[in-house]
Parts: sequence; structure tokens; C-alpha cells
Amino acid sequence: MDKTVKQQAQEARAAAIELAASPRQTRDAALRAVARALTERREEIFAANAKDLERSREEGLSQPLLKRLRFDQGKLNTVTEGILQLCAMADPLGVTQYAMEMDEGLKVYRVSCPIGVIGIIFESRPDALVQISMLCLKSGNAVLLKGGREAMLTNRALYDIICQASQAAGAPQGWAGLLTTREDVGEMLTMDDDIDLIIPRGSNAFVKYIMDHSHIPVLGHADGICHVYVDRAAHTDMAVKIALDSKTQYVAVCNAAETLLVHRDIAREFLPAMAAAFAARGVEMRGCPRTQEIIDCLPATQQDWETEYLDYVISIRVVDDLTQAMEHINTYGSGHTDCIVSADDEAIRTFFAGVDSADVFANCSTRFADGYCFGLGAEVGIGTGKIHARGPVGLEGLLIYKYKMVGNGQTLEDYAAGRRHFHHRALQEDCPL
Amino acid sequence: MDKTVKQQAQEARAAAIELAASPRQTRDAALRAVARALTERREEIFAANAKDLERSREEGLSQPLLKRLRFDQGKLNTVTEGILQLCAMADPLGVTQYAMEMDEGLKVYRVSCPIGVIGIIFESRPDALVQISMLCLKSGNAVLLKGGREAMLTNRALYDIICQASQAAGAPQGWAGLLTTREDVGEMLTMDDDIDLIIPRGSNAFVKYIMDHSHIPVLGHADGICHVYVDRAAHTDMAVKIALDSKTQYVAVCNAAETLLVHRDIAREFLPAMAAAFAARGVEMRGCPRTQEIIDCLPATQQDWETEYLDYVISIRVVDDLTQAMEHINTYGSGHTDCIVSADDEAIRTFFAGVDSADVFANCSTRFADGYCFGLGAEVGIGTGKIHARGPVGLEGLLIYKYKMVGNGQTLEDYAAGRRHFHHRALQEDCPL
Repeated sequence: MDKTVKQQAQEARAAAIELAASPRQTRDAALRAVARALTERREEIFAANAKDLERSREEGLSQPLLKRLRFDQGKLNTVTEGILQLCAMADPLGVTQYAMEMDEGLKVYRVSCPIGVIGIIFESRPDALVQISMLCLKSGNAVLLKGGREAMLTNRALYDIICQASQAAGAPQGWAGLLTTREDVGEMLTMDDDIDLIIPRGSNAFVKYIMDHSHIPVLGHADGICHVYVDRAAHTDMAVKIALDSKTQYVAVCNAAETLLVHRDIAREFLPAMAAAFAARGVEMRGCPRTQEIIDCLPATQQDWETEYLDYVISIRVVDDLTQAMEHINTYGSGHTDCIVSADDEAIRTFFAGVDSADVFANCSTRFADGYCFGLGAEVGIGTGKIHARGPVGLEGLLIYKYKMVGNGQTLEDYAAGRRHFHHRALQEDCPL
Repeated sequence: MDKTVKQQAQEARAAAIELAASPRQTRDAALRAVARALTERREEIFAANAKDLERSREEGLSQPLLKRLRFDQGKLNTVTEGILQLCAMADPLGVTQYAMEMDEGLKVYRVSCPIGVIGIIFESRPDALVQISMLCLKSGNAVLLKGGREAMLTNRALYDIICQASQAAGAPQGWAGLLTTREDVGEMLTMDDDIDLIIPRGSNAFVKYIMDHSHIPVLGHADGICHVYVDRAAHTDMAVKIALDSKTQYVAVCNAAETLLVHRDIAREFLPAMAAAFAARGVEMRGCPRTQEIIDCLPATQQDWETEYLDYVISIRVVDDLTQAMEHINTYGSGHTDCIVSADDEAIRTFFAGVDSADVFANCSTRFADGYCFGLGAEVGIGTGKIHARGPVGLEGLLIYKYKMVGNGQTLEDYAAGRRHFHHRALQEDCPL
């Protein structure tokens, strides 16, 4: 009965072509229809979610994961509000980014357009299915969705409602597909020609697996090994406060700090205060030999510098100077988010230029590495790659552009033979076609 | 004596960090030093090139390839002029793209920066080595270069001059590496952690091989199966002129047309005129059954629609309508460059929206698909991927951005607990750090 992954991908490709050409009104009408239908059919969703919760509880899913799995009125309100905010946003498609008159009557424009077919793999949170599919719809992309097994009934209910409501409102048949098994994911990873971008949201090992087993571009991050570097010009109180928040505000997330680097000139003043604050929050400290001379802590091994604890554990290293701190970060970091605490603008400037990470912060917590905090609006994911998009990625991560050229019969031979010449005048106009 | 690929890549990574932080003056001084040194040491280059030419002639290299291999005073002038133009360009680094005040005293900026380490693989033209390495230097990227075996002595001479001159002028040691063997390329493809982007310039099969055998992102194109679609609202004379130029102005290049699609309503008027023009230029025509009813030509098979001839051959298909033309292009095309000839703006609009290619043209030759024609300046390559950059890619294809956040002690907990609130005011200012 169910369609194969290949069939769904091919339908998604055809739908993507149609969506790319659809006017804003169609996409926004479909978004509004989904918001309405989710509210109207909420009891179906809650009933499916109750079954998922019951089964998962029996299977021993942990309390935090059960909490993420729950889809209640609060979650429903959040996702429908999000959808209405997306409707209110300007159309990201059809934006002219470059306009050039090459010669009389020959113009070229660069215009934003959707990427095409996006593959999304997400964990237990079923609200992610709604958020990400609506981001794709707003930006004119087709999407193949693969959620966690725990949420399978909730995901199916949400997916059915989204498809029926959006398609009734004019979205093309098959613009969203739902994959259900692990084997489906394996198949997806081989479909270079059918899927343009994969956005995996899941455990480090899982994201790493996807990156290593597919030639399809991946937008995401495996590790989040974030650093706080306390410069010699730091204010101790501020440094303690920032390091504590970076480590403990929420330990299980990618933008939590895992390693603290301390300039040797400030170590004797800073480390005892820091250790007291960490101890009060139950943070286990693992230090380099120089750290151990100053505070009481476990020894840090090479392994510690490479570990994302995602727990109440921090590794601490005393460094000779800013250069050694930057070398440490560029060697062991994951290019996610790294922070300097310093009152010295020159040190901050050097750190910002020399640390090769998506986010470089000064004098604030690494926990601010988030699209909502940045003011980017809806977040597609956080990327640590070096092309397309990195850091917190908003809607624009789902966009690319095409060049549109309009002439009136020009041939290259006229220019090659010198009968005509380009004059290249930059234009301030939108593409008319 | 020679360094291993791994050693060169590690030196390049260290140099990339330094280059990313280097001021414009350093990079431009290095560029000027290279231009000067190439001129001063031209006899070394010409002597090395003479040996390459002699050996290649003995090995039976074809005339066109020998012509590409030649590096003479004319080529030298072209590359040195190109370098001086790069010096005159604004610094692409450090450009603030987004500035947001999140709250009083807490600001985030998105600022352009280099990608890091670029791997370039190019064919026989030794001038490409100079051009691409200078583009990397201007944009603060380190580069690993692999040229064709035919040009090995010329490449070595150019590379030595570039390294010596640029490093003497302040560019970091090891910012450019030279790979020399096929095995080096194989090793390069596995170095996900050391190389951020590969730009292959070579035969279709070669580019395809690289895309299929590396997890490193690739900017480039394998096939260039470009189409000209003659709409029913086309002017016959213009359509003949454009199709002829697209096919024959230079057959061996990726932006030459390979397939002609003709609306059935105009086929009887257009095809005979087109056939006469093709015949006069010696173009072999292979048509679908409906084409064969109108003009004398060979039959086209399924295989023809999928073939990039790069020769005086064209496949021709009569289509029912614009929709069928777009379906043909989206099925058999390579997403490179496709053109509609039509006097009907609505048809052009539909074609532009519905054809999923990097370049969509109306009423001009596909041969205009070129960064120089577009007014983009120096061209890094032409991409048919769907992320980062597509179509002719200028210097900005070598750039990404990082987010820089500056606070004065903020912690996320203050916002999570509701003690402080984001106000998100967009700023019109450059990042001060």
C-alpha cells in the first residue's frame, strides 16, 4: 500500500518543480490551511500521541525523551503560531540579488529560488515534523520526512493532516513524503539524483554516519565541542558567570561549553572562583597539569579535549597565550561556537579572525548560539560545514538562486568577432520575468 | 624531498587560518609581487613550457590541447593583467552581511570570511594554475593545486615563482601546495578534514568520478547538456540564429547546445530553415520521428537525449507544448543552461520558473553562460549543484561567513528565566571587531 522511497522521491521532484513556480498566495494559503486543520483535527493527533507515549513508556523511554515526544495543546499552539508567523513573512522566492545589463537589450538577473527536494531526518519531537515541513513549503521546497520510531503514530497523523490540508489548498500532490523505517533512510542516502540536501537532526553518531555514507550535501553538525577562553584581560566575575552559564544552563545541547581554556596570567585568580561555582552546581572538573596545581580536580587526558560530554563535566586547560588557545580550539573544536572573555578589543579581534568556527563570541554565553536568539526567525538547523550556510541557519538555508538572461536575438559570435561589445552596467531593478 | 599530500594539506590549513586574519594590504601586496615575479622570470616559464610542449608533441597530444598547453607572452600578459584587476577589487573579506542588536549591549554580526582550504584539479592549461591560485589568495583561501601531467614542468615553474614571490611579500608559508601524481588526487579525495571544497575542471567523466568518490563538497559540473527550445511564438529567423550560435560557435564547451526542442505548431515553418543552416555548417542532425517527417535527418534514440556531443551533432525533438519541453529539459538536461526562443512573455515566465537549471535564458545564445559575459569578473568555475553557488561562480563562491557576537557578560539563563528579553533591532552598521 505504502509508496516506495523512490516513488515518493520522484513525486517530490515533480512537486518541487511545481512549487518553485507557485505564487506566494498558493504557498501561504496552504500554510494557513494546515494551521486550521491541525487545530480542527487536534483530537486525532492527541489520540495518536497518547498511544506513542504509552508504548514508549512501556519500552522504557527516559523521562526527558518522553517529554520531547509529548504533543499536547501547548505544542499545538506553538506550531500553529509558528505557521502563521511564516505566512506573515515576505516571500523568500523571486528576490533579485544581482541585475546587470551586459549590452543594449541583453540583461542577466540572479533570482532566489528553492533548492528542490530536501530530506529531513529528525528525532523524537513530532513538532519538528510540522515546523520543518512548513519551512519547506514556505520556501517552495518538496520534502521527504523521516521521524523517530517512538513518534510514529503522531508523525503519521500530523503528516496526513498536513498533506490533505495543504493539497486541498493548492499545494502540489506529493510535495511531502513520509519515510518510516531505518531501511528507508539507507535508501534515501543513496538517492543523489533525487534529493538535493539532507538535514539530519539527531545524535552525533547518527549525523556523522549520514555525512560519511552519502554523497548528498548535508546541512548539520555532528559534534558541538564549544570552548570558553578566559583571556588574561578578562574580568573574573564576568568570566565565571559566562563559563557557568555556557556549561550548565542546559548541558544536553550542542551549544553548551565542553572545554574551558584559561590564560596562565589569570589562572591563579580565576580558577579557584570558577571551581567553587562549578562545584556548587555539581560539575565534574578535569584539568591539565597546570590546572591541577591550582584547583582540586581530576586529570584531563587527550581524550577529554575531543569529547562532547553533554553532561555536568568540563575539561580545563591553562594556556600560555591567546595563540595557544586558538590553536587548541582549531585543533579540538568542532567549528560550532567558541567564546572569548576579555576586556581587550585587540584580543577579541584576533580571536574572531583566528578561530575557524561558525560562531565566535565575546563576553557572552555560548548558549546564545541559536537562530531565535540571533533574530533569524525560524531555524532550519545549525551547520558546521564550510559551504552554503553555517551557524544557525534560517529559511535562507533552503534557498539557492538561478540566473535569468533576457535578450532579443544576441549571439556570442557577434561579441567574439568584435562586432559588438559588452558594456556591463549594474542595474537597480527586479527581474521582470 | 617532496612533501606528502597530507603534509601539504596540514600546512595549508595552518596558512588558511593566518590568511583569513590577514589584512587586505598583505594579500594585495602578495598578488602584486606574483605579477612582478612572473614577468621578471618569464624565461624560466617559457623554457619549462617549451619542454612540456616538445614532450607532449612527441607523445602525440592533439593540436587543440597543445594550443591550450602553450604558455607564451600573450598568456603571461593575460594572467598578469588578471592579477592586477584582482588587486583593484574591493576586499571580499570582512563584509558585514547582517547586524542585529539582540538586546542592549548584545549584538550579532554575520561577516564574510574565506572557506579555508580549496582543492583545485585542472587540465592542461597552465594559466589556470595562476588564475585560480590568485583568486584563492585574494579571497584568503589556501589552495592545493593539481595540474595535468602534460604541463608538469610549466606548472612547477609557475608554482615556485608564485610561492616565492607571495611568501616574500608576506603570504603565509605553505598557503599553496602542488600535487603532482594521480595517486595524490586519490589521497586528496579522502581528506574530508583537511580540504573544505574541491573545484575540478576537467572532462565529464573525471568530474563525475570526483563527485562519486569524495565526501568533500564539489563545486563544478559534469555534463553540460544544454537545450534550445523554440516556442510556437518564436520568430523563425531569431530562432535559427540563436540555435546555430548555441550549437556551432564553439562545439567543445559545456555551454554549447546539444538538443533542440521545437513546438509542433512552428515545426513545419522552422525546421526546414534550421536544417539548411545546420547543413551549411556541417552539423549532423538526429531527429525524433516527427522531426524526420519534416526534414531529412538521422533518427534520434533515447541515448541521444542523454548525450553531450561536444561536436557538430545535434538532437532534435518536436514537442506538443511548453510543458513537454520543460519536462524533457528537467529529465535529460544537466541543470546547466537552457534557452527559450519566444516572443511571448508568459511562455518565458513559465519556462524560467519551471526549468530547474542554473541558467535559464530567453532569446539569446546558450554560449553567454560565462562569468565574464555575466559581468561577474573572474570565474572560479561553473556549478550545477543545488547548494552554495551555481551557474558561473565568481569570487564569492570561495567565501562563506561567520557570526560574531559581542556582549558584556550576558547569560542565557537571564533570558530563559524571563529576567531579560530580546528586542531584536536590525542594525545598519559594520561589525567593529
